[in-house]
Amino acid sequence: MAYFCDLNRMKDKIQTFSKFGDAGHGGITRYALSKEDEMARDEFVKRMTAIGAKIEIDDLANMYATIDGSDPKAKRIVMGSHCDSVKNGGNYDGILGVMSAMEVLETIVEKNIPHKHPITAMIWTNEEGSLYPPAIMTSGMVVYDYLPDNIKPSVEYSKMMASINVLDKTTTYKEALAKFKYIGPKSNRLSRDKYVCNFETHIEQGPILEDAGNEIGVVDCVLGMFNYRLEFHGQTTHAGTFPMNKRKDALYAASLALVELHKKVDELNRPELVYTTGEIVCHPDVHTCVPDYVNFSLDVRHEDPKVLEKVLAIVKSFDGKEFTKCTCKVIPMWNRDTVYWDKDLVKFVKESCEELKVKHQYIHSGAGHDAQFVSYMLPTTMIFVQSKNGLSHCEDEYSDPEHCMLGASVMLNAVLKADKHYE
Amino acid sequence: MAYFCDLNRMKDKIQTFSKFGDAGHGGITRYALSKEDEMARDEFVKRMTAIGAKIEIDDLANMYATIDGSDPKAKRIVMGSHCDSVKNGGNYDGILGVMSAMEVLETIVEKNIPHKHPITAMIWTNEEGSLYPPAIMTSGMVVYDYLPDNIKPSVEYSKMMASINVLDKTTTYKEALAKFKYIGPKSNRLSRDKYVCNFETHIEQGPILEDAGNEIGVVDCVLGMFNYRLEFHGQTTHAGTFPMNKRKDALYAASLALVELHKKVDELNRPELVYTTGEIVCHPDVHTCVPDYVNFSLDVRHEDPKVLEKVLAIVKSFDGKEFTKCTCKVIPMWNRDTVYWDKDLVKFVKESCEELKVKHQYIHSGAGHDAQFVSYMLPTTMIFVQSKNGLSHCEDEYSDPEHCMLGASVMLNAVLKADKHYE
Repeated sequence: MAYFCDLNRMKDKIQTFSKFGDAGHGGITRYALSKEDEMARDEFVKRMTAIGAKIEIDDLANMYATIDGSDPKAKRIVMGSHCDSVKNGGNYDGILGVMSAMEVLETIVEKNIPHKHPITAMIWTNEEGSLYPPAIMTSGMVVYDYLPDNIKPSVEYSKMMASINVLDKTTTYKEALAKFKYIGPKSNRLSRDKYVCNFETHIEQGPILEDAGNEIGVVDCVLGMFNYRLEFHGQTTHAGTFPMNKRKDALYAASLALVELHKKVDELNRPELVYTTGEIVCHPDVHTCVPDYVNFSLDVRHEDPKVLEKVLAIVKSFDGKEFTKCTCKVIPMWNRDTVYWDKDLVKFVKESCEELKVKHQYIHSGAGHDAQFVSYMLPTTMIFVQSKNGLSHCEDEYSDPEHCMLGASVMLNAVLKADKHYE
Repeated sequence: MAYFCDLNRMKDKIQTFSKFGDAGHGGITRYALSKEDEMARDEFVKRMTAIGAKIEIDDLANMYATIDGSDPKAKRIVMGSHCDSVKNGGNYDGILGVMSAMEVLETIVEKNIPHKHPITAMIWTNEEGSLYPPAIMTSGMVVYDYLPDNIKPSVEYSKMMASINVLDKTTTYKEALAKFKYIGPKSNRLSRDKYVCNFETHIEQGPILEDAGNEIGVVDCVLGMFNYRLEFHGQTTHAGTFPMNKRKDALYAASLALVELHKKVDELNRPELVYTTGEIVCHPDVHTCVPDYVNFSLDVRHEDPKVLEKVLAIVKSFDGKEFTKCTCKVIPMWNRDTVYWDKDLVKFVKESCEELKVKHQYIHSGAGHDAQFVSYMLPTTMIFVQSKNGLSHCEDEYSDPEHCMLGASVMLNAVLKADKHYE
């Protein structure tokens, strides 16, 4: 028997959570550990307590709402995502996974659906890393012991960054955490002892499902990626007095390098490759001064490690190269391998789509998610909901409430299949 | 008879003023109306009071130290510059003109040099506009009534900006001014009623004098310039999920435009033209987001308005143009015509160089200075002191103390010639 979640209850959740951090023009800014984050968690507690779920919090402010199953010895099935956003972000990224997990529990309780395992809806803290970089911070910390050696440095980096006052902010992540309303013991963290498998529902954040006319994506993997910074070292001089032919203009150098990088990477002719320079630092950033220092980010993603290696070779060829007399320095930040989801769970999601007659397809995830770290500890999979125009990390981000309800319904039925599958 | 100023006293001033805002690695950060600015003014008051000068302050915190002349009815000759700096600036830009003016008064008093006019050493507030943009703020306000109509909008812009909380700071210029230690009545402002002519000594901020082996520049004009912003409007999407061929990446667009702009302007083949993009804004400036908005500054300077017009035609041709699907918008900020100094005063400076046997040459000023606004109210000229490696607006900024003393000496003798020339 296949179950549907409740469209009106889902709509009500979307409307309610969209208020917490409402920027007044369609989207939200809800940084991790902010007042707005606290409001979202208050709502989570209110609604989950209302259906009799038990609330737990760990030392990183991750929150767990659990309903019992029929077998008191069975481990928990967990579903979760995050409720923080980027600056001027949308109403779906992250929070849809939390709302879908809540909706699954609410439907199970409402319809009194029999299940063996306890089932948990969860909120991960600081997935976006907007105020406290880097992204996907706490899930990495929680699963650290299970990570392969080449991934551990990324989490080491997270741990280091958590104590650093970045972005010119007056508070570090650790300080903000210590002051946050929702804090509990480390023993409440997600673990293999207590949990058996993990689901995450998320918006696609791309246009593939919409272009194909599909409502739901059966996610099979998260693309491998690498993240670099390219630095350019020049010399500050006065904009009005220093001859052009003697200048070392770091911003012009960075522009030349970025254009050349695009040209060379595009020559690889891999249309499914994505790469992005989203962040730029310019010093002294004064209109009457020639810039002496610029750096920009570079984020590259593809399923095939061989393609990533080809791009990396291009990027590395820039190291030590001169652009308009400024030296380029290439600095590795972090990387991840392509992570394939658990085959059984992917099958359960696919079957649920078929049983519910939802329009669906297999899809890769280009974005990173908490699920990608959790997959090193627990069997894990993801469900994607169609994004309008593929827009995300912006206020125009939108998913049809019907599609959101379908995403939750697919997760519900997949969870029930997992409930039967695992001991 | 030609007089020299005192090398040791000049050195002592350079050392002393370099402490006020000392950043610990060779330069200073001394923003207008800051505690460091106040310390510099305290020192100015201390030294000028010691030689019997009368201290006056106007409503914009501009400061005046005046010694009497033999004719009680004669108007004052004024010499001045600013004591604020850019972020991580040097120990000479601006403050050298203040120290030179002080040195002239100190030499006149010490040597009891006869003169008819009262002579004033002056500090202009907020020339750099580092914390409170734009640059050259208060001199524009003081001379506003004398400005030609095409220059007035620049000062209107200054007045507007003075009330705006820019750069994410918590204080506006006006609020900072109201709290500053040194404030006086508007009636103390520089005026045609009380002043007869104006001198400003400044470091060259370029490599021309050094390359030619000259110590002092006899400045004949300030180059005309225009200042624009180029905006690029794209669409934020997720760095990992949105296909390259559908992106509207505003930062890549800005890079393409900047590279094309350099190519086209360089094709004009005018080696004496300078143009600079020193400032860039990127939104949302997150490494996992495709940027949806970028703007950058453009500062272009040349003596010949016809050359400026050619560059302007290139810049304007970018307006409405698409770069990688992002629309470019070209926004005029402000401009100035080439300002030629008073011929008599330029001659006095030239003659003083010859009499003191200082190695000198005629030179244009590429940078803007308070003198350029004052020239609309009073006969005005400038004296340049050689800059080491042409570096300025950075901590490596340096001028030889001997050259600084020579600059003050040239100004002293030119002032004495003006003293005889004017009624």
